[in-house]
Formats: sequence, structure tokens, C-alpha cells
Amino acid sequence: MADGTAEAQVKCAAAVGCGVIGAGWIARLRLSGIHVCAYDPAATALDVITEVHDNALRAWRQLDLEPAAERIGSLTMCSSIEATVANADFIVESVPERLELKHSTLLAIDAASIPTAIIASSTSGFKPSVLAEPLTHPGRLLVGHPFNPVYLLPLVEVVGGADTREDVIERAIELYRSLGMHPLRVRAEIDAHIADRLLEAVWREALWLVNDGIATTEEIDDAIRYGFGLRWAQMGLFETYRIAGGLGGMRHFIEQFGECLSWPWTKLMDVPELTDELIDTIAKQSDEQSGHLDVRELERIRDHNVAAMLLALERNDWGAGRTVAEMRRRSRS
Amino acid sequence: MADGTAEAQVKCAAAVGCGVIGAGWIARLRLSGIHVCAYDPAATALDVITEVHDNALRAWRQLDLEPAAERIGSLTMCSSIEATVANADFIVESVPERLELKHSTLLAIDAASIPTAIIASSTSGFKPSVLAEPLTHPGRLLVGHPFNPVYLLPLVEVVGGADTREDVIERAIELYRSLGMHPLRVRAEIDAHIADRLLEAVWREALWLVNDGIATTEEIDDAIRYGFGLRWAQMGLFETYRIAGGLGGMRHFIEQFGECLSWPWTKLMDVPELTDELIDTIAKQSDEQSGHLDVRELERIRDHNVAAMLLALERNDWGAGRTVAEMRRRSRS
Repeated sequence: MADGTAEAQVKCAAAVGCGVIGAGWIARLRLSGIHVCAYDPAATALDVITEVHDNALRAWRQLDLEPAAERIGSLTMCSSIEATVANADFIVESVPERLELKHSTLLAIDAASIPTAIIASSTSGFKPSVLAEPLTHPGRLLVGHPFNPVYLLPLVEVVGGADTREDVIERAIELYRSLGMHPLRVRAEIDAHIADRLLEAVWREALWLVNDGIATTEEIDDAIRYGFGLRWAQMGLFETYRIAGGLGGMRHFIEQFGECLSWPWTKLMDVPELTDELIDTIAKQSDEQSGHLDVRELERIRDHNVAAMLLALERNDWGAGRTVAEMRRRSRS
Repeated sequence: MADGTAEAQVKCAAAVGCGVIGAGWIARLRLSGIHVCAYDPAATALDVITEVHDNALRAWRQLDLEPAAERIGSLTMCSSIEATVANADFIVESVPERLELKHSTLLAIDAASIPTAIIASSTSGFKPSVLAEPLTHPGRLLVGHPFNPVYLLPLVEVVGGADTREDVIERAIELYRSLGMHPLRVRAEIDAHIADRLLEAVWREALWLVNDGIATTEEIDDAIRYGFGLRWAQMGLFETYRIAGGLGGMRHFIEQFGECLSWPWTKLMDVPELTDELIDTIAKQSDEQSGHLDVRELERIRDHNVAAMLLALERNDWGAGRTVAEMRRRSRS
């Protein structure tokens, strides 16, 4: 993990698709000393990459992880997928979530890259086997689903498809670890993997709460960040509830809770319709809540808070704080 | 808020029901200088109160909030509801979530307490109007739903019923603020209020993931605490997604996401059956994940982490960190 094997293997990475996720990958890779070739047809791509890199550098400085300038990997903007991936050992695909676009992009990557290169899709929704359908070399494709901001949050969901080679998954996991990330191997392919299924469940319920006028976007956010959000930053759902079960543990908790599960509490049996009216309501409430800050300020606030909590958890030698310790070992090696 | 009005009004509180939630209330009240009379028929009640108080004291010490011994409110264990509530200005009911038990308890409290006393139920599920049905003075009953650990997490959901007087809600909110909490006024009565509806949505989805063998309890916890949990400790769902919408903001985010909402991602259309087999699986996985730590150790780890993150957020003058600043102002006044 800290022996540099994976770093030694990956000299040059490629990023195809440079929105906020692709740019986040680029920042984490470069700050870890890896050269990156990047491609995105959008005219604003380099601006996004630069802004995200600046945010990342600020956050890593706060974590006391700032690499010396000469140790930051170079960035080469390319004008085609072919040129971008030609020399890369590790290729990250982060184009928008449209299957036909994913397929055409991955097909072009597959055709132009060296056969030993790993292709990792950032998809939040698609199964790797579905993504691999048109590929000539599906064995080296996997899903490596990160979380925004990629340069701070350690989680990456690693999912192999029916044809993905085991050694490819192992090499990817080794690389993610060397980047200070927490690779979570997802053993079964399902749409949206694990975390986004949980997020979608909350999102649906939140839409109902707004739709029915029970709570505003700000009230829902407050219900999260002043309460269970603080629990979930360090333990998850089950370990927290194990505690709630007291000396009777998890079994006691479930047996208590089980009854409630069939109560008609939620509207989850149905999907709220995203009417123009509901979208207007949410957009307006969100403007009232956060509109006084532009998105870059919000990003900086988020990063400042997440980095501060990561440092706190590092001092406690717990959870996500341990990934910072890993990054620190690397940055000082 | 910091002028001590509410403290001046509440000299003596009563706690009926002293499980982990009731004991958490007792700890927060006493550490804030309020005398508490307590009642619980369980033989272990005083042990639970003492253990939770010790945990609270440890956490407040970490927050540099430890009150001098003579400023900690006294604890009087009583042998009946009547004796417990007789002189209280503020009464917290935290008995188990069974409606007939809630009703009989609240009826006894209503009959024995002074008419100006506020009765606050800790219920996580019931609407205040339903709780108030048998009461003679329903105007002074409200829901004040806290989150475990009550002595650290600031959120308290405040819900009035059809008959709850507005001045009662305002006095309760003033008291909660004076305790360094974040009272969230819930404008409409619904089962499970706001936060627990979100939690139940995640819980159901998590049960499916375990039931279908997609992920273990530990993997689900990791998917939360290495990823979005760190976002939610400081911003909630909507502010985070506003950022994800980039310069297009919330509207752009929803329009992107809207399509996915009708994809068959989740199993939320149905309630998983809590078979003995599923309970066994969860209990066994939870034992493998956390069984090496007893519940008191887990509580201390949780509190140590939450307190550290609260301090970090206090330094950033953000979110839940601001409630610590409030507590600090009070403890030093």
C-alpha cells in the first residue's frame, strides 16, 4: 500500500471527460505526482480543471499535504481521445451519464490505448458489464466510482463486470490505495452500485417532503447536518444503530425497529413526479438558502469543512482520517 | 438566546423514561445547570443515567465545556411519575414507542404537573396531535425529538399539534437554544417528522442490499463514512447537490438527475420482509464488523469523533460548530 508499487506502474494517466468529476480525478492524480493527459470537447474544460486544481491545492495545503511544485504531475490537454490515451497506463472515463456516449467513448479508448492499460469508468449508475458490451478488450474495463470532491473524499466504489480480469481489479485497487483513497470492492453488479442507491432513497424522500410542503430544502439540510450527518461522517448506519440497540446490540435494535418498518411512514412506494412546479419550488428554496454564495465559494466552504473534519479524524486515528495518514506517508516519502 | 431568559424560567426539569434518550436529555440538562427529577421503572435506570452522564462529561471536557461541579444540576430519582413531575417547569417524556404507553404516561404527567409546565415528548414517530388525544391540557404538549447522543448532537425537531399553544412552542425553542441545541421547527405534523423519514428511507434500501447479498453491513457503513457522510456532517443534501449542479445550480442538477429518478434503480417500491434469516444475517455481519468493541467503547469512539468534528466546525464558524460556540458562551457566562 505504501511501497510505491502502483505509483511505479502508473507513470501517465489519461482523463477523458473533464467536468467536476474528471477534473477532481486529475487534481488527485497530479497532486500524487502522476502525469495526466486530458480530453474534453467543452471550451471551458481547462477552466474547470484549473479551478478544481486550485481548490484541491488549497485543501491539501490545509491538510499539510502540499507537494513541492516539481512533484506535481504535469497536465497535457489533448485534442482527441486517441492522442489522450495513447501512452496512458491508467485511463479514467468521466463523460456524462448517457449510455450511447459512454459506449462510443469507451470504444474509442479501447481502440487507441495500449492493451495493458486499465480503463476505469466513473459512472455512478451503469453496471460495468453493460458498459463493456461494445469493447474488444472488456477484460480491462472496470467501474471506479468516486465522490465529489474527488481530491478529498476517499471513497471509490470498485466494480468489475462479467469479463473484467481479477488482476485488473487488483491493480486498480492498489493504485487507488496509493492515492490515499478507500477502494470499496462491490461484489455484485447492480445499477447505481451501493452509495448512490442510499443517496437516491434519501433524495426521493426529500422530494416528497418538499413537494408536500412539509419542509424546505434548508430545513431538510439542517435536519441532516445538525443530526445524523455528524454520526455518518465517522460511523455508518449499522454501527450507529448497533449502539442504539444498547447492550442487546443489533438484534435488539432490529427487533424494536422491525414493527415500524411496516407503518405507513413514507411515500417510498411511489416516485414523485418532477413537475415544473416542483422544480421551481426546489430551485427557489435553494436560491433562498444558498444563493448568497456562488458555487465556487460553496465549494471552498465545503472543502474547508471536510478537510478540517478529516484532520480531526486523523488525530483520532479513525475512519476517513486514516486515509489522510496514508496520503501523508506518501507525500513525505 | 444567550441572555439566560429560558434558563431563568426552567429551574427544575423532569425526565420520565430514562433509556439512552432520556438519560441523554438528563445529561444535557444537568450539564447546563438545570436540576432534574427522573423516573423509570427499570431497575437499571440509574446505571444508564450514570453511564450516559459519564460519557457526556468526557465529551464536554473534550469540547472544553466542562462545568464546575457546583454548577452541574442535581439529579433526584423518584419512585412515581407524580412525584417526578410535581415541581417541574419542563417535562421530557422518553418512554418506548408504544402508543398506549405514551398515552398512559402523558396522561399521568398531565394530571400531576403544574399547568404552566411544558410537556415535551421525545417520540421519533408519533404526531403530537395523536399523543395529545387523552390529555386535559393538550395546549402545553409538543414533540421535541432529539438525536442520540443527545448531549452532543444539536438537532431537536420541534413539532406542535393541533392544540399546542404557540407560546409553548416558543418557550420550548428558547429553552433548546439555551441548551446549545438547534431547534428545527417542523411546520406540519407527519409520522416520523423529517429526519427519521430520511433515515428510514436509507434503512430500507440498506436492508435490501444486505438481503440480496450485494453488500455487508460493514461495506454499507464504509460507503457512507468514507463518502457522503463527510459531506452531510456540514452541508445537507440540497446544498451539496447545488454544488454538483455547478454554475447551473440546483435547477441544472435536478434536470440532469430527473431522468434517473424513473430508472428501476431501487427496491423502494416494496418493504423488505424482516425474516429471521435476514435478522440473523445482519446480526452476524454486525458482530463481525463491531463485535470486538462493546457498546460503551463504541459510544466513546463515536463521541470522541463527533466532539472532534464539532470542534473543527466551530473553528470554521460553520453549521453544528456554531452550537458549540453557543454552549461555550453559556458555560463561561
